[in-house]
Formats: sequence, structure tokens, C-alpha cells
Amino acid sequence: MMNLEPKTRAEILVEALPYIQEYAGKIIVVKYGGNAMINEDLKAAVIQDVVLLNLVGIKVVLVHGGGPEISEMLKKIGKESRFVKGLRYTDEETMDIVQMILCGKVNKNLVSLLEKAGGRGVGLGGMDGGLFRAVRRRDEDGTDYGYVGDIVEVNEKIVLDTLKEGFVPVVSSVAAGIDEETNYNINADTAAEKLAVALRAKKLILLTDVCGLMRVPGDDSTLIPRLKVSEVPPLIREGVISGGMIPKVECCVEAIRQGVERANIQDGRVPHSILIELLSKDGVGTMFS
Amino acid sequence: MMNLEPKTRAEILVEALPYIQEYAGKIIVVKYGGNAMINEDLKAAVIQDVVLLNLVGIKVVLVHGGGPEISEMLKKIGKESRFVKGLRYTDEETMDIVQMILCGKVNKNLVSLLEKAGGRGVGLGGMDGGLFRAVRRRDEDGTDYGYVGDIVEVNEKIVLDTLKEGFVPVVSSVAAGIDEETNYNINADTAAEKLAVALRAKKLILLTDVCGLMRVPGDDSTLIPRLKVSEVPPLIREGVISGGMIPKVECCVEAIRQGVERANIQDGRVPHSILIELLSKDGVGTMFS
Amino acid sequence: MMNLEPKTRAEILVEALPYIQEYAGKIIVVKYGGNAMINEDLKAAVIQDVVLLNLVGIKVVLVHGGGPEISEMLKKIGKESRFVKGLRYTDEETMDIVQMILCGKVNKNLVSLLEKAGGRGVGLGGMDGGLFRAVRRRDEDGTDYGYVGDIVEVNEKIVLDTLKEGFVPVVSSVAAGIDEETNYNINADTAAEKLAVALRAKKLILLTDVCGLMRVPGDDSTLIPRLKVSEVPPLIREGVISGGMIPKVECCVEAIRQGVERANIQDGRVPHSILIELLSKDGVGTMFS
Amino acid sequence: MMNLEPKTRAEILVEALPYIQEYAGKIIVVKYGGNAMINEDLKAAVIQDVVLLNLVGIKVVLVHGGGPEISEMLKKIGKESRFVKGLRYTDEETMDIVQMILCGKVNKNLVSLLEKAGGRGVGLGGMDGGLFRAVRRRDEDGTDYGYVGDIVEVNEKIVLDTLKEGFVPVVSSVAAGIDEETNYNINADTAAEKLAVALRAKKLILLTDVCGLMRVPGDDSTLIPRLKVSEVPPLIREGVISGGMIPKVECCVEAIRQGVERANIQDGRVPHSILIELLSKDGVGTMFS
Amino acid sequence: MMNLEPKTRAEILVEALPYIQEYAGKIIVVKYGGNAMINEDLKAAVIQDVVLLNLVGIKVVLVHGGGPEISEMLKKIGKESRFVKGLRYTDEETMDIVQMILCGKVNKNLVSLLEKAGGRGVGLGGMDGGLFRAVRRRDEDGTDYGYVGDIVEVNEKIVLDTLKEGFVPVVSSVAAGIDEETNYNINADTAAEKLAVALRAKKLILLTDVCGLMRVPGDDSTLIPRLKVSEVPPLIREGVISGGMIPKVECCVEAIRQGVERANIQDGRVPHSILIELLSKDGVGTMFS
Amino acid sequence: MMNLEPKTRAEILVEALPYIQEYAGKIIVVKYGGNAMINEDLKAAVIQDVVLLNLVGIKVVLVHGGGPEISEMLKKIGKESRFVKGLRYTDEETMDIVQMILCGKVNKNLVSLLEKAGGRGVGLGGMDGGLFRAVRRRDEDGTDYGYVGDIVEVNEKIVLDTLKEGFVPVVSSVAAGIDEETNYNINADTAAEKLAVALRAKKLILLTDVCGLMRVPGDDSTLIPRLKVSEVPPLIREGVISGGMIPKVECCVEAIRQGVERANIQDGRVPHSILIELLSKDGVGTMFS
Repeated sequence: MMNLEPKTRAEILVEALPYIQEYAGKIIVVKYGGNAMINEDLKAAVIQDVVLLNLVGIKVVLVHGGGPEISEMLKKIGKESRFVKGLRYTDEETMDIVQMILCGKVNKNLVSLLEKAGGRGVGLGGMDGGLFRAVRRRDEDGTDYGYVGDIVEVNEKIVLDTLKEGFVPVVSSVAAGIDEETNYNINADTAAEKLAVALRAKKLILLTDVCGLMRVPGDDSTLIPRLKVSEVPPLIREGVISGGMIPKVECCVEAIRQGVERANIQDGRVPHSILIELLSKDGVGTMFS
Repeated sequence: MMNLEPKTRAEILVEALPYIQEYAGKIIVVKYGGNAMINEDLKAAVIQDVVLLNLVGIKVVLVHGGGPEISEMLKKIGKESRFVKGLRYTDEETMDIVQMILCGKVNKNLVSLLEKAGGRGVGLGGMDGGLFRAVRRRDEDGTDYGYVGDIVEVNEKIVLDTLKEGFVPVVSSVAAGIDEETNYNINADTAAEKLAVALRAKKLILLTDVCGLMRVPGDDSTLIPRLKVSEVPPLIREGVISGGMIPKVECCVEAIRQGVERANIQDGRVPHSILIELLSKDGVGTMFS
Repeated sequence: MMNLEPKTRAEILVEALPYIQEYAGKIIVVKYGGNAMINEDLKAAVIQDVVLLNLVGIKVVLVHGGGPEISEMLKKIGKESRFVKGLRYTDEETMDIVQMILCGKVNKNLVSLLEKAGGRGVGLGGMDGGLFRAVRRRDEDGTDYGYVGDIVEVNEKIVLDTLKEGFVPVVSSVAAGIDEETNYNINADTAAEKLAVALRAKKLILLTDVCGLMRVPGDDSTLIPRLKVSEVPPLIREGVISGGMIPKVECCVEAIRQGVERANIQDGRVPHSILIELLSKDGVGTMFS
Repeated sequence: MMNLEPKTRAEILVEALPYIQEYAGKIIVVKYGGNAMINEDLKAAVIQDVVLLNLVGIKVVLVHGGGPEISEMLKKIGKESRFVKGLRYTDEETMDIVQMILCGKVNKNLVSLLEKAGGRGVGLGGMDGGLFRAVRRRDEDGTDYGYVGDIVEVNEKIVLDTLKEGFVPVVSSVAAGIDEETNYNINADTAAEKLAVALRAKKLILLTDVCGLMRVPGDDSTLIPRLKVSEVPPLIREGVISGGMIPKVECCVEAIRQGVERANIQDGRVPHSILIELLSKDGVGTMFS
Repeated sequence: MMNLEPKTRAEILVEALPYIQEYAGKIIVVKYGGNAMINEDLKAAVIQDVVLLNLVGIKVVLVHGGGPEISEMLKKIGKESRFVKGLRYTDEETMDIVQMILCGKVNKNLVSLLEKAGGRGVGLGGMDGGLFRAVRRRDEDGTDYGYVGDIVEVNEKIVLDTLKEGFVPVVSSVAAGIDEETNYNINADTAAEKLAVALRAKKLILLTDVCGLMRVPGDDSTLIPRLKVSEVPPLIREGVISGGMIPKVECCVEAIRQGVERANIQDGRVPHSILIELLSKDGVGTMFS
Repeated sequence: MMNLEPKTRAEILVEALPYIQEYAGKIIVVKYGGNAMINEDLKAAVIQDVVLLNLVGIKVVLVHGGGPEISEMLKKIGKESRFVKGLRYTDEETMDIVQMILCGKVNKNLVSLLEKAGGRGVGLGGMDGGLFRAVRRRDEDGTDYGYVGDIVEVNEKIVLDTLKEGFVPVVSSVAAGIDEETNYNINADTAAEKLAVALRAKKLILLTDVCGLMRVPGDDSTLIPRLKVSEVPPLIREGVISGGMIPKVECCVEAIRQGVERANIQDGRVPHSILIELLSKDGVGTMFS
């Protein structure tokens, strides 16, 4: 515990008041990933943030992937990870591992951490309560990604039920196939975006390993703190938004267009970055609106 | 706003987490009075504390008197304040003034302050919804206090309704007479205690102008931080608890005996003392249990 | 009790049946004032009417001012009442007295009377639950009335909550300022009208000290029993409606235009005039529709 | 309409206030029969009473038989009415007629009358929702009554559902057999008593064609207005209670013993006798408690 | 019980699954009449079907007439049945008998049968809860049918209340007169159709004594299994639909036009024809859509 | 589909009626395992049974383990399965695999199968909503099983929430540790028993790969169809109940003692054995009561 006067502590709580008032009863969808999910201290901080927000009446939904842990398991069973256009090629055996790692390991471990921190989570996969239905991704150029899917239907009832009962929903980015026998591997950013839209969330937060969108990639001092979605296309044309940042930005743009009030790409490497973003005047990362 | 790192601020919020968890959904009755009700800064701090607690799901009920403002009004109409055994002698005209000042001025101004701070209060007197019914106080020695009453019936429904709808109840210490035509002037500490018992509150807080119960009255370094109700009688016999402190301590003892979990006599002159007491490891004043 | 056959009494109850059916579950807003609030017998009759109506399922809301009692108090503290265009000029000190008298004395005493008559009331001021928000009245000609306000926002939730729980709401005509630090003095007729509109009341009743709107003012035999709101403007032009009657009629017209079904200006000097108006074929006063 | 001052009418309504308060929300079971069900004016008065009571929040349940109409129908089909120890001997054909007349004619006509008077009734027989289950009556001396039954099970849910939705339940005194293929003819006084007990009614009213229980049968001036159930046995021994009055009194006694607060044997020939009993100081008939 | 392997039985249950899923929570209105109401075995099978459907969550409403039993009773009292254009001429005395037989005998006996089969029914006539309001039928050619009525108002609340509480509503085809003192005799097919429309039923089933609509009347091999309502008019012109089949077909057409999804004319002489129609791939009779 | 008359099919449905009535609204906990979880046809039959039961209002909860799939995965990563006293020794790496396979693969695949069959499931692990809390198993003789746990706390709220919303809860037999950092591997029979007790289930069904409890193990003709829990101890002493059957029988005994009405050990190799047990007169296996 920090060495601060009780009065100072109380004042800091009081300064959070208007922010809590703003978000009270609202839904915030957080795509959780990157370093924030690997580093133990960062992980503990994220969990504390979520439990606190839940307690003060802000409805947080966690959506997660788990790339590193999937790769590790594949390695363990002697299978090489293969990527196509930046996405993991997912054959049947890989899909099995993806589902096990996401729904069985990452998801349930997050729920356990929430419990230990005094919160109460419920872990869900896209098949639970018919949450996500997907079709196989088919690019126009015929690229094959295996069992990588695109969500075509969101049935958010189970998430709303869970929130209504006071639990924190923790959602794995896998989906049931709408037309086939198999389940699908879903990009976690997209899953978070689709869910935010279906839940009419007030905010979508994408935790990443960069400080946000920068005018000069790599130079934190050129961070763009706010961006209207109408300003995005020229920035893509100019190459300011490029590479892996493009799909993340597109998630934000799509979320805003479909009615989410604000979307944030922010630095998951900063401890308590969710709390800082939501409960203080200090925004972190890039906010789209 | 204080000059602190965002991360530090977030950590301070996180440190409040276990305390918020402890009190979430519970009822806290605060007897509000003394300097905390006169000094504008202290007043603002109390109001902020109450709005914040209400927002994070802790159900605060404010009970207030208003001695100084009653005296001032009596002076204005040219009537002298008269005290009998420390209590204001309340003739019919005085009772009229007491009711007007408490229910019409102090109460409604507190409600207005809550509104301005983003909270939502509802001001109640003891006659509203049949909340408090009282009989005339009659000492065994025949002392006459005029229209000073003792509460004999609490009908807490209106307070519970108000809490259920998310409002902060602000309660004036006057009561309807059970057997006569008149209303009664009630000691605010007692009104708070009776209400805490009826509401099965988790905590009763009496704000005073001393730092708590001291072994050597006047010497803050001799503060007694915790006291079992069984330890009270010897302390009264020894004279450690004496004078105006006796009825306050008796309110605490009675509250504990009737099922309130804890009762606090604490220093209303410390800014945010309610928040400090409830949401940090730093207790303030003397806690009875 | 009157000397009547049981059978006759029963028949009179039965004759009230169609009227109770008409108003069952509906909201009636009564502006209570004038002699009906001063004379003790009339007061008792109004209270009985309200308790009876509440009991048979008709939802009565009382809105009151309290001119005479304000004047009396001002006199007591040696301050002269000053009127501008018929409205009390309200400086800061006066506003304090207005609020105290209305919210602290008149309001709570009415609640006490309801309780004694076996009903259950809850007294509210415009600041409670954010009920009335007002701005300072500013005439085009620059007339200054001090803290006299115009209601610009009605948040009827607290009144509906109170009705839902079976209580009779008793509302003082003061409001919280929307843009300033102070509360405002509101004309009680207007407060009743605004509230009737917000509550979608079936009827607005203004109790006055005349028998209604008369073709020849002062000649009761020229009472106009019913008036369409479209007939009002010519009557104002002809001078039939004049003086203090104009704002009252305008309240009725505005209420009707905003969706209240009927509005009545009626004689509060007749005992049980509310009951007679609502539960018998004998209308009293002038009904606007 | 009677020629009375509006003010007088209002006062009579007000005088009913404490009685309405006493019975508000309570259940009253009325056994309806005798002249009150034959004479058209009396019938209209009963219906008005029930609609009024229902409207002011008193929950009336009507239970009826229909001896005269059964006899008339039997005559029509050329079958003689036969009585055994004062009860109609009910062979299979008779039971068919009893059921048709009670459930099909009397019951539905009462419901129609309630509708025409602005109320809303729902007619029920003992088979509806499993309300009454009966076994064949078997006297110790082997007397055979045919399909006359004794209620052994009351399933009051359907009546409570109906009351909850604001309808007046109108119940025919027939029951489904618990152990056989047939339905049973039930004494209406007993059906009313059993139902009152199951509903935890506040009052059971048996409408008869005498003014109540009289010390000297036939001499109205010897009416016994109140009786404790403990006073009944000696009165039976003395022969004060005799003949057809015995089973009626036993219904009242049993009702009281099983928790009904009060039971009344009263004169159905007096117009509005239900209203007079319930809403005025003038009791009618004999009240058991 | 049939001599079948447990496994076979289980598979048959499983095969009903998609049909139960289709109708779960939906309302089905069945006009019950003809042989299915006379033959004891058929009757037992209908009752079992209804209880089973109710249990698996399909909301069945039974509407019935009772021609043969009315005729029998009229004969018993020595009154001849008279028919006008195929409808029973209903004088006042006949109406009395109609109401008694339908509401008192047929209706309550059906409720008793449901109870014995482990279901729970509530019998209702058109006067209960204001369910059906009718006017006297008046043909353009001046034909007089006596108290035969046309339904002009359906107040389905009581039926919905009954369904909500889990009961099977059993409805007699009589109605309260909207404008007169009398009740009316209603054609049961029409009553079922009007009720199906008001309840937004998924299906209307008319049980008849033919196997459905046949291209060659009397030749079962020419059964028309499905028909669009647009195909009906030519079939009437061609004489394929004729005689007593015309009003039945018109009920179906009207039901479909007013929003009922499907309407069936089917053979009530086949045991369990309701269950076969609803819970198997084997449709029975003619389905309109 | 079988070649049976529609009428025969209907009759078979009708014969299930009393069984559906008996279980309607009740909770049945099924421990799912063995061949029924491996053979694809048996699996499909179990899923159909569950969907059908859920649809007709019987609340099924599936609890599963997944031994064979765990072994297979361990083999894949080159780790040998080790068993201690018949239980899998669970080191940290194994626990990881257990959790992944149960919560991530078996559980979610069952949920997917329910969805495809038209049902709607929600997969839960013991950490979700704090469902199961366990401590490390410690035998008196010091045997170490690694992360094998004993359930010490069941918080059934999340399962009840899920049932209330109409979903089928599918529960993996893993638990959160109450006192340590790790999760635990739980015996699925025990998990099912503990859950049945907490849910006050009407029945606990343990699916096994034998036909039930046999007097002569291996000889199906000696099946014991019913057993009182009091008859169990002598049978254990006599060696009739021995080996792996002992813990299963103990689960049943414990369930009955704690208030579950009946417990069944039955043959999961019989297709639709759940349906046969619940919805027909043919019990399967051994029923404890």
C-alpha cells in the first residue's frame, strides 16, 4: 500500500466520482490479449480493474484469444504453427487444440483469477447459449485458412443473463459453425467488436502491445489521442495506419458505425490501463468516436 | 486535482476494492451534524462521500439535526433558546421553528447539495410515511422539556422504498406524536440509532466534533480505537466516558445490542472522514462492536 | 353522524359507484390553497376526501403553496412582504423563509393530518428526487421578481414511486435551480399544472376562494359550469376572465393542451368539494375540457 | 337518486371511510341465496354491493346454490323433488339437472348481471381448477342422499388467481368426486364456509331469509347481535338454535374455529344488507366471533 | 399398453421432438364437436391429447358446442328443436336450455374429464370476464333465428390469464349480449375462429365427422391435404366446397386472413387425431394456409 | 422413422403422459460417461433424450468427466497416465490437460451437439460462478493423488440461473481450489452427487457400462432392480457390491441421505436409456431410494 495520507486517498476516490457516474450501468467490452495476458503483474492488475469496475456497477465483458498458449501446446504435440496472411491456418487437429486452450485453459483460468480477487466470473465459448455462429472464411482470392470463421450471428442473451445476475462474462473467441459439423477459430478483436455491437456497449477497448495509433509508428510521442471514424480512410491511404493495425482500426470503425459510442486501442502494457481509461481524466491510447 | 501518476491513482482505487466489497448492498446510517454541517468545505466533502458511496452500491442514510440554525432563527424572531439538562426546551412556538428549520431548510438544502453533486436525494421528516412516532419525554424526576419526544415506533418502509429506487434518504429528526396533536423534537443521535436498528444497518456513524472517545478527554493521543459494548459500563463508572459523550456512547451501545454490526463515534472535522472510515484500512474515531 | 336510514346510506354509496369506476386508478392533481387550507373544518374535510379517494383507488396528488403563513413568518422576523405584478418579490432571505414554511411547516403538517386521518402521506419539495428544476423568471420588460422561478424540467419518478407504494404525495411549490446555487419560489397553480401534465393526470383541480368562473364576476348565479379551451380567448378579450383569474385559467388551458383530460377551477370554501366534484353528478365550479 | 344535499352525500361517503380501511384488501365470502336471489330488486342491490366493494378494494367471493330453480326444472321434466333429512335426494338424473342449473344457469346469469353493472365476474364450479373435491355423504345411520357430497379438499388457487386479476369469483356449490366418476351436489352454506377457510377470509356472510339468530324464533326484537362460538353449544341445548338454523350456525362456528375472523348470519331481504354490514356502524343479523 | 420394445418407444418419443419444438409455447384453438364428443373412447383420446399437449408446453384452448345434448334436453321438456337455414331457432326458453347444457353440463363435464386425466381445466362461458360480446344475428333477407348471435367483441384476457396459470381453458359457445338483456347462442366454429384470431393462435383445428375437404365429397381418396386460402373461391364456385362445408371453410379462411398461421378441418373420428396432426409428420384432414 | 401406424405412435406418446407429469419441473442430474460418451450413436441418443426432456419441462443437468480423451491427449504429448488406487494421479501438467480436455473439448462439444439437436446448452466448469470449491484429497494413509480434489462447497446459483433461462447446464468435473492457487480434478460421479444434493434434484442418474448392480457380477439376469439404502451395507460386507461399484453405490447412498429422492445406476450402453428410465414403466438398472 502506498504511503499517502488517508485524506489524499479519499480525494482520489472522490475524483473518480464523475467517471463512475458516466459509466454506471453501462456495458464495456474489453478485448484482452497481448502482454497484459502474459505478464503476471499486468494480469493481476487487469483482474483487479475488472472486479472493481464490476463492483461499482460498470458491466465489463472480457473477450480473449490466446495465441502464445496455442502455439506452445501445438509445439508440445509436435505440430508446427502455420500462418496464412497473418492468421493461424487451422486444420482440424489445430482447431481442437485452439478450442481446448481457449475454452478450457485460458478462459477458465481467467475465471479462477476473478474468483480469487473477490469477483465472480462465468466463462463462455461461442457455442454456449448459441452465442456466436460462424461460417468458414473464404477470401475472394480463394485463400484457405482452414477452420477460421467469420461470425454471422450473435445471440447475446446468455451474456446479458450473466451480466444481469452480477457475473463478469469471460468469452473465448471460438464459434459454433452455422452450416457444418465443426467449430471455428475466430479473431478475438472481431469477436469483441461483434459482441460490443450486439450488446449495445458504451465502449469497446482493445488492449494491445503498443501505446495506441501513432502518426510515426514506433514513436510514442506521435500518439493520436482521438480520431473520428471519418478520418480513418485517408490515414490508411497515407500509410499511417498499416500492417496489423489495419484490422484493429477496422474493428473500432465498424463498432462505432454500428452504434458503440466509443472504441479505444490502448496499451495493455501499462498497469491498470483499463481503470485509467475509464475512471480518470487521463485517456490512454487512441479513442475512436 | 492532485499531482499524482495515473498509475498511482488507479492503485489507490484498487486498494479500496475489498472495502467496497465488504459494504456493497449494505445500509450505513450516518448521523450528520456539528462542524461537518457548518463548514462549507467539510459539507462538500460529506456530500461527495455520500454520492460516491451511493454510486458504488453502499446504501447511505443521512440523519440530521440542526441546532445552530434553529438557534439563529429563534434569535431572529426574538426568542431565547432555553436548555434543560442539555436539551433544548421546546415550547409550541419553538417546535414550529424546529420543524421548519429541520424539514424545510436543512433537509431540503442537503437534498439540493446531493443533486448538484450528481446524486439524488429524497428529504423525509418523521411524519412522512409514518416513519417516526413519538411520545413526550417524561423524566422520572418530572423534568419538563416541552415538545421533546422519544421515538416509540419506527415504520421504515418509506426509507426502504427510497433506497430501493436508488435515492439517498435524508431524514430530519422530528417525529409525529402517537397520542397527541403535535409533532416532536427528537435528538438526532437517537433518531439515527433507532433508524439504524429498524433498517438492520451494518454500521451507525455518529459524526462529532471530537476525534472519538479518549481515555483522557481532550488528549487526542489517548483515543480508544475499538471498544466492546461490555467495556462501556466500567468506563462510565471511572468517568472516562462523561458529559455529552454519555448519550452518544449509549446510542452506540443500544444500536449494537439491537443488531447493528458496528457503531462509530468519529471526527466530522476531518474531510472525507466517512469515506476514510468505510473505504480504507484507516479507521477514524472509536468503533463499538 | 347523520340521522339517516342504513338503507339510504347504502344507496348513497351505490350512487357513487359509476364515478369511482370512472376515476379508479387514475391520477388527480389537486392544487390546495385558499380558505380550504386555513379554516380548520374545511381542512379536515379536504383531508378526509383525499384519504377516501386514495383508499378507493383514485390517486390524488396534493400541491400546495402557503402565502398567508409565509407573510405571517416574514412579519414575525420584521420583514415586509413585497409584491411585483401580483407575485411575491423573493429576495434571498425571503426565499429561505418560503422554503422553510412550505417544505417544513405547511407540507409536513398536511402529512401529519393525513396520518391522523388514517391515510399515509409523503411530503416532497421540488428538490426531492429532482422533481422540479427551474430557471429565474425573466419578463420581457425586465421585471425582476428575485428568486421566483419557472419550472423547465419535471422529473416525476419520485411522485410515481410514492403513488405506486400507496402513499399520497404532498408537494410544495418550490424548485431546485437548474443553473444556479439557489432554490426557487414557484407559483403553486403552475406547479400543479406542470405536475399534472408530467403525470398524465386525468384531472387537475384548482381550489380557490370563488365558486368558479363567472360571467359577471362576483355574481355566483352567472357561474360558467363548462368551457372548451377554445372558448377562453374571446372571454379574456371581453374581460369576463380578468385579473387573478387569468393565470388560473391559463393553467387549465395549458394542462388540457398538454393532455390532461379535464381541469377544474372550483370553490374550496364548500366542504368536501373535491369529493362532490369527483364522486357525484354534481359538478362544482368551472370545468375546462 | 335521493334528494339530498351534495354535502350530505359527501359526508356519508366519508363516514364509510374507516370501514373501507378495515376491509381493504381483505377477502369476504358471501353465501348468496334465498329471497336475495329471487326478488329482482334485491338481486340488483346485491350485485351493486358486490361491484362497489370490489371497486374499493374489498375482495368479494360469491358462493351460490339455487334450490328453487332446480325444483322448477325438475318439475319441467316431470320429476319430483325428494328430500331426505332436509337435503335434496340427488339421483344421477337429478345431479345432472343440479349441475346444469347451478353452473349453467344461475352462475352465468350472475356473471352477466355483474358485467351489466360494470363489474367483471368469472363463474366457477367446483371442478374448475380442481376447486372442490368431494366424497359421497354417508351418515352413520346409513341414510342415503344419492349424489350429495362432502367437500374433503379445497384447491383455492383458481379463486385467488381470479381475485388477483381483479375479477369477482362466482362459485357454484357442486364438486368433482375425488374417488368416483360423478360430480356431487354440495350444500352451499358449507361450500362457502370451506372456501372462506381455505382463502383465510376475514368474514363469511350467510344471507338468509330471517333477520338473524333470535332468542325467540320469529320475534325480530329478540335478535342476538353478537355471539362467541363458545356460547353456541348451550343455545343449541336450550333449543334456541334449532331446525334449519343449526347447520348454518355450525358453518359459522367451524369457519371461526378454522381461522375466519368473523361470520355473519344476516337478512338477505334487506336491500344492500352486505354493504350495510360491511361499510357502516349498523351491523345486521348475528355476528359470530 | 402396446407390446413394443422400450427402445422403440423411446425412439417414437424422440421423433416427436421437432414437432414439440415447433409448437412449444404456442396457442392452438380446437373446436371440439361431432363424434369425438359423443363416442366415449374418442372423447378419452381427445382429453389425453389435450393433457399431453398442455404438459409439453403447447397451449390448447378447447371450444365446444353441444347440439345433440341440447336436442335431447329439449325433447325431455317436450319442446321441439326447430332449425332455420341449418341453425337452431333459439327462442327464450331454448336459449335457457342452450346455456345450461353448454355452460353447465358439457363444459363442466369436459373440465372434470381433464382433471381425471391429470390435467387441470377451467370452464368458461362467453360472459365470464366479458369474453364474448354478441349482437342478434340479422340476415339481410330478414330471417329470424331468435337468440342466435354474432360475436362483435372478444376480450381474451380471462383466457390468457387461465393459460398463464397453466390451466386448459374450455370455452362454451355462448355470449353475453352487448345491447340487450339476454345471452346468445353462438355457432361453435365461429366462436373458435374469433377466439383463435384474438389469441393470435398458431393453429385453428376444427374437428368434424368427415376426413377433410374432398374433391369428390364422400370419396376419402380425393382428400385435398393442403389449400391456400386464395384457392377457396374457385372451389366454391365449382361446387367442390358446398353445403355445411362452406361455413367451416369460411371460418378457416377468415382465421388465416386475420393472422392465424394455419387452420385445419380434420377427422375427429380418428383416435388421437389432434396429437397426430400436431406431433407427427402425418397431417390429417385439410390444412389451410 | 419406424413403420408404425400414426395411431400407434400417438398412443405411445400418450403412455408417456403420467411419467412426464411426475417429472415436470423437477431437476434430474445425469452423470454422463462411459460408452455413452464414446459411441457416436449412443451419444446422439443421449443428446436427443436431453433435448426432449428439457422441452417437455424436465430440467436435466449433465455432469461429465472424460477419462479416455484425457488419456489420449496425455499420450499425444508423450506423458504416461498413472493411477493411484484407481484414480488418475494428477500432477500439475496433467491437471492442465484435464482442465483443457474437460472444460475446453468435451464440455463445449456436448454444448455444440445440444445446439445442433435444437436444444440450447451452457457449458460450465467448477470455477464458473464459484460452482465447486475443493480441497486436495488426503487419505488417512497418506496416499498422494496430486491435484485430485474433494468438493467442500457447492454454490449452485449459476446452475439454477441457467436452468431458469431454459438452458441445459453441462458441467465439467473440475473445481477451483478453496485454499490454493490451483484447480482440482474431481471424480465425476461425486461431482454429480454433490450437485444433485445442492440442487435438491428429484433424481440422480449414473450412466455406466454395466446393466446395473448385479447379485452375481457379470450375470445380467441377477440384476437388482431396486434397493433401499439401508440394504447397502450388508451387500458390501457380503462382497456383492465390490471394486469400482463401491464408490458409485456410495454416491447414490449419499445422495439419498441428503435428500435426493431417487438415484439410479444404469446402463449407458442401451440407446435412450435416460428416456426409458424417466418416461416409461420400464426401469433400467438399479434404483436406490
